[in-house]
Amino acid sequence: MRAAFTRQGKIVVDTAEDLIPSSGEVLVKTLACGICGSDLHALRHGHEMVKSQKETGGPLVYDAGKDLIMGHEFCAEILEVGTGVPKHLASGDIVCSMPVLVRADGIHTIGYSNEFPGGYAEHMLLSSQLLLPVGNGLSAAEAALTEPMAVGRHAVEKSSVTGDDVCLVVGCGPVGLAVIAALKQKGFGPVLAADFSPRRRELAELMGADEIIDPATESPYESWQDAAWPEGVDRNDPTLRLRQVGPKPGVVFECVGVPGVIDQIMHGAMRDTRVVVVGVCMEQDSFRPLTGIGKEINIQFVLGYTQDEFADTLRGISEGELVVDQLITGRVGLDGVAQAFDDLNDPEAHAKIVVEPWK
Amino acid sequence: MRAAFTRQGKIVVDTAEDLIPSSGEVLVKTLACGICGSDLHALRHGHEMVKSQKETGGPLVYDAGKDLIMGHEFCAEILEVGTGVPKHLASGDIVCSMPVLVRADGIHTIGYSNEFPGGYAEHMLLSSQLLLPVGNGLSAAEAALTEPMAVGRHAVEKSSVTGDDVCLVVGCGPVGLAVIAALKQKGFGPVLAADFSPRRRELAELMGADEIIDPATESPYESWQDAAWPEGVDRNDPTLRLRQVGPKPGVVFECVGVPGVIDQIMHGAMRDTRVVVVGVCMEQDSFRPLTGIGKEINIQFVLGYTQDEFADTLRGISEGELVVDQLITGRVGLDGVAQAFDDLNDPEAHAKIVVEPWK
Repeated sequence: MRAAFTRQGKIVVDTAEDLIPSSGEVLVKTLACGICGSDLHALRHGHEMVKSQKETGGPLVYDAGKDLIMGHEFCAEILEVGTGVPKHLASGDIVCSMPVLVRADGIHTIGYSNEFPGGYAEHMLLSSQLLLPVGNGLSAAEAALTEPMAVGRHAVEKSSVTGDDVCLVVGCGPVGLAVIAALKQKGFGPVLAADFSPRRRELAELMGADEIIDPATESPYESWQDAAWPEGVDRNDPTLRLRQVGPKPGVVFECVGVPGVIDQIMHGAMRDTRVVVVGVCMEQDSFRPLTGIGKEINIQFVLGYTQDEFADTLRGISEGELVVDQLITGRVGLDGVAQAFDDLNDPEAHAKIVVEPWK
Repeated sequence: MRAAFTRQGKIVVDTAEDLIPSSGEVLVKTLACGICGSDLHALRHGHEMVKSQKETGGPLVYDAGKDLIMGHEFCAEILEVGTGVPKHLASGDIVCSMPVLVRADGIHTIGYSNEFPGGYAEHMLLSSQLLLPVGNGLSAAEAALTEPMAVGRHAVEKSSVTGDDVCLVVGCGPVGLAVIAALKQKGFGPVLAADFSPRRRELAELMGADEIIDPATESPYESWQDAAWPEGVDRNDPTLRLRQVGPKPGVVFECVGVPGVIDQIMHGAMRDTRVVVVGVCMEQDSFRPLTGIGKEINIQFVLGYTQDEFADTLRGISEGELVVDQLITGRVGLDGVAQAFDDLNDPEAHAKIVVEPWK
């Protein structure tokens, strides 16, 4: 089969070995697979990324010196079922799955495994127990967005947001947009969203953010605090605490993932703010504990999603609660993957590019 | 009245103005007042501390260039009641209070106010609505430990610890010891406690810690993980997650407050560990977000306590649930305060020195 390999820091289309499903597995035809920011990072900084993951106990562990077929945001069609696969699954079914292959020797991360190909290949092997049917006439490209949207859903679940919270999303790349969508799907808000990119601010509005902020012209933290405080209150009045006057509770989602943002959020936070770190900063970072202490800030780091969150995200897309088609700004075949990786470096040009290996 | 002033970085005994209680206030005779680590820091680095507090929204804001009478862990006897003080309060009553004076113009932090003296003075003014009666024949010195013990209690409340959690207390100064005591008071555990100082390890054991660790000879994090994991499990077995085999949930209390400790704890943490930052690091700190992300760590910064936590801590001491007398390693009069500040720099020499202004 054909596949777009990650080989020595480049994307190269080549022939990969054909796949045979083991017991409990299905062989699928990849219909659509989104390109993720982590893939861009892995292409450029594979060795460093794997080293960091090993040191910090992360899941993206593979041999960056060897061939890799990335792609972990996919929708596929079943071609062949292995032994022991439940009867309700049959060839021709359109499915999504969390990007993991469950084998007796452990869990393999599809898209970051030297052994099993990800979605930038014509075929993949998937574990039957993780398959979710794609129905309702949903397109494969939209179904492929289940994975990145589930990241936002998980962040919202871990944040314990309620309808009382005033939410701020810092950074409106795919991760921030997924958080906005998940918040609005659940009816939470107001949701304020900040990004330096005009295109991303447009998308944040399309995803339902209630207030859009350009950090170059106004402080996201001031706007967010304005939304949380009752109108007409002097916030420096020393008698506020005596009178039990204060802002609504606040949650900030860090969706940028570069050094300094967590500290900046802590500085801009209100008392008792919960900070949810969804952006993936690969480097050492610095912060000021005293800021956290004075405000009793809570920081929740998050990663991935559960099977239930993943399944319910697909249901939400399928039933129109989550509208994702506007996020798809490009479609390429396997031969277009290398260029697509380049193009994604410009936030004005693209949000999500979907790879369609058979087109 | 006589008082031990903080003046230009030195402790000096001098005469302070006599005090007159306003409406709702009482004039008290200070019976006992503990010396806190924050006081040591304020003496040496007052200007920097106030600057940091202002920048981070902390409560310890005063003019470090002017006279200050510190002391915020106290027990006192009512000498005179102002107008509007409830009838059940009378001169001769022994009381504790949170170290705040509530006035119409706002809340003043007793012990860090240029205007109102703290407990290193013969007299203080206290707000009647915050007074708690000291009964049960409890000594004034033990009652004075309500404040530092309430810090531990608050940390435990904010941590949402349950009986399922395996707890690790990193640092066994007064803050760590208060956390250990609060955990054991509530019946939580096992509680592991680590400190380089032999004396502090002894005190940790006296406060009820279940396992005491000298970090110079063994890793606190390994011991803690050993306590959390079922016996005989290969923790690197890649099928553990499939078999839903894992450790008990873990909570780590950071009670050191120097740069690098939070990062060290994150590195030593298990998946889903909650870190409670009780130690007060005054400097910039660095950490690795990826460590938090890979393990979905939660960090809760805490400060102070609520009035309910403070009151219930006094009740706990009074009823023998919290045994604190072993923490009192020295007693001095006002003339001994300067020397006591010096002596407290050696963790082998002292845990808590109590100032008794009338002795």
